[in-house]
Amino acid sequence: MTERIYNFSAGPAALPLPVLEQAQQDLISLGDTGIGVLEHSHRSKAFLAVYEQAEGLCREIASVPDNYKVLFLQGGASTQFFMIPMNLLSKDQTADYLVTGSWSKKAVKEAKLFGNVNIACNSEDKNFSYIPSEVALSEQPAYVHFTSNNTIYGTEFASEPEVPAGVPLVCDASSDIFSRPIDISKYGIVYAGAQKNLGPSGMAVVIIRDDLIEQGPTDIPTMMQYRTHSEAGSMFNTPPTFGIYVLGRVLQWLKDQGGLAAMGQKNQAKAGKLYDYLDQSQLFKPTAAKQDRSLMNVTFVTGDADLDAKFIAQATAAGLDGLKGHRSVGGMRASIYNAFPEAGIDKLLSMMNEFEQEHAS
Amino acid sequence: MTERIYNFSAGPAALPLPVLEQAQQDLISLGDTGIGVLEHSHRSKAFLAVYEQAEGLCREIASVPDNYKVLFLQGGASTQFFMIPMNLLSKDQTADYLVTGSWSKKAVKEAKLFGNVNIACNSEDKNFSYIPSEVALSEQPAYVHFTSNNTIYGTEFASEPEVPAGVPLVCDASSDIFSRPIDISKYGIVYAGAQKNLGPSGMAVVIIRDDLIEQGPTDIPTMMQYRTHSEAGSMFNTPPTFGIYVLGRVLQWLKDQGGLAAMGQKNQAKAGKLYDYLDQSQLFKPTAAKQDRSLMNVTFVTGDADLDAKFIAQATAAGLDGLKGHRSVGGMRASIYNAFPEAGIDKLLSMMNEFEQEHAS
Ligand SMILES: Cc1ncc(COP(=O)(O)O)c(C=O)c1O
Ligand SMILES: Cc1ncc(COP(=O)(O)O)c(C=O)c1O
Ligand SMILES: [Mg+2]
Ligand SMILES: [Mg+2]
Ligand SMILES: [Mg+2]
Ligand SMILES: [Mg+2]
Repeated sequence: MTERIYNFSAGPAALPLPVLEQAQQDLISLGDTGIGVLEHSHRSKAFLAVYEQAEGLCREIASVPDNYKVLFLQGGASTQFFMIPMNLLSKDQTADYLVTGSWSKKAVKEAKLFGNVNIACNSEDKNFSYIPSEVALSEQPAYVHFTSNNTIYGTEFASEPEVPAGVPLVCDASSDIFSRPIDISKYGIVYAGAQKNLGPSGMAVVIIRDDLIEQGPTDIPTMMQYRTHSEAGSMFNTPPTFGIYVLGRVLQWLKDQGGLAAMGQKNQAKAGKLYDYLDQSQLFKPTAAKQDRSLMNVTFVTGDADLDAKFIAQATAAGLDGLKGHRSVGGMRASIYNAFPEAGIDKLLSMMNEFEQEHAS
Repeated sequence: MTERIYNFSAGPAALPLPVLEQAQQDLISLGDTGIGVLEHSHRSKAFLAVYEQAEGLCREIASVPDNYKVLFLQGGASTQFFMIPMNLLSKDQTADYLVTGSWSKKAVKEAKLFGNVNIACNSEDKNFSYIPSEVALSEQPAYVHFTSNNTIYGTEFASEPEVPAGVPLVCDASSDIFSRPIDISKYGIVYAGAQKNLGPSGMAVVIIRDDLIEQGPTDIPTMMQYRTHSEAGSMFNTPPTFGIYVLGRVLQWLKDQGGLAAMGQKNQAKAGKLYDYLDQSQLFKPTAAKQDRSLMNVTFVTGDADLDAKFIAQATAAGLDGLKGHRSVGGMRASIYNAFPEAGIDKLLSMMNEFEQEHAS
């Protein structure tokens, strides 16, 4: 059997090995049902138990209040980019967007199809390397949208932006959901593509407050109304059953790791090791502003594109995969979500150290 | 290890065992990459090969002409119900719908949000137990939509309805795609939720002619434009990577079985056995009109709901799962898609035979 290597991919990303091993068995027979997890009707007793476990663990781990629904939808975070304004923004209203990266910009583009957008802040002036401290909200925004972690640029909000009472805060948490404690009651909607911290691609998790579900229009396509999925327990049509299954296994693993508080500490420790090294390195430089550093995506450069390429090639050869940074930033990006093992960070650090010594000027 | 049982589920449904066994290995390491199939970046070389294989096999198996794209989308067939009229129907136009079951009706409901709908035929008068032979098309329909196989009612079009030259024929083939030869050039769009004949739930396969891709408006959400997915090779956003992977394996299996012609014969033989028994049975009655019988979903009743329930319970106890008919029809439904093994049909037949003898009046 092939040995597993360290996978620094930004998403789809590394998953906990015990989850994959359990899935291997359940592919042929989910528990003792004699039917594989991919093959079970979504209405079967066995699959309903899988669904309820996933939904229940989601609620438990994040202490989701009773007046919120947890929905498992298709179309990724990109579908939420337009489904949110389609439901919550009308032509005469304004939604505020904090623009801290490419994903925020894409969300803005879709919102403009439905109403007015106020750019409450924008860090594009410095290639999104920081989170603006000043946010200029409009008078009465329909909602305020932000991207809690900027996957590409390696920045992360230390805490959620403040919004006036009554204004729903909407968060694209695709790349840091459940990586640390979260107070759901501060949000109207938290959504995430599953493929970084939660499971396979092909599913978005949407945690949404009941009043926002009800608020949406009824003359838009049935599949685009949150109420459709809320009323049907995410089973209006055939849900992504395998995604829901893996999510449940990942959340059980997360719970076994001690839940969000413990995970937050581990993520601090994991990313901390990398940033500590970067801060003293003469060769490698972190690209994100210090106070805005992401614990999920650590971006760094040597300042010399050829040297970056050389480092990435050596790392790949040594079994450290997916370190190439996004073209918008260049250099390296180490995506180290919940399931990424600390041993992989240690191996990366020793490689960086070696490389730095070889290339000391 | 638990023994596998016979799974007559209407979808998600039975998959070929060799495909599941291969997937077991690839979950931990896709080939010799050291990274599991769920964990690979959709932009990685390894996953791109998976994507190209799936897309290539789709084209090869169905002889998809060059002027068609094969798209792997999210949201199931239910998203196509509205995405099609959103792209192809404007307020002043009319689309024709052949209404042969609940799924056709749901498609109609979504189309009405975008333009006019002409119901070209409707078999609801006899609980959708037949396919109307008369179809009254409108003058210049934007397209003609039909459901090639009615999963719930067990009816299937023997061949595609005829449409005037230049009118795109659009087919929801969710429950019989690739179960028999298909001439794609007769269609504008063929779409299907993957979870019956193609793979796991969470993906729709859309085969669409180039001119229809270009025809759609550009002021609708980016994710809702066929051109977005066409231009990006289904990778505008993170695609359902595992679904694409399983699809590729299922199509390779289908090719190894001899392709669509051979599969069509097998499906004839499999369903034929059941219908032959039903035709001579004194107890069990098929519910679909003889000339419109589905090879995928065989629906039958005893005429006595208690007896139906008793039969289903005995079958379940004997390892024949998922035989309960949809509540709209009652009785029994044997969903026997491509991957359903003939041995399961033989076992069902011997159970029916036994049950009939026990209950001979
Ligand atoms: C922060 C963020 N938002 C949105 C997306 C888009 O997600 P999806 O591919 O699921 O549509 C990504 C994908 O990487 C992301 O990192
Ligand atoms: C013929 C047909 N069309 C559409 C659907 C809906 O598909 P989905 O659940 O993928 O939206 C089904 C599901 O069973 C079906 O059988
Ligand atoms: Mg970003
Ligand atoms: Mg430095
Ligand atoms: Mg039907
Ligand atoms: Mg009979």
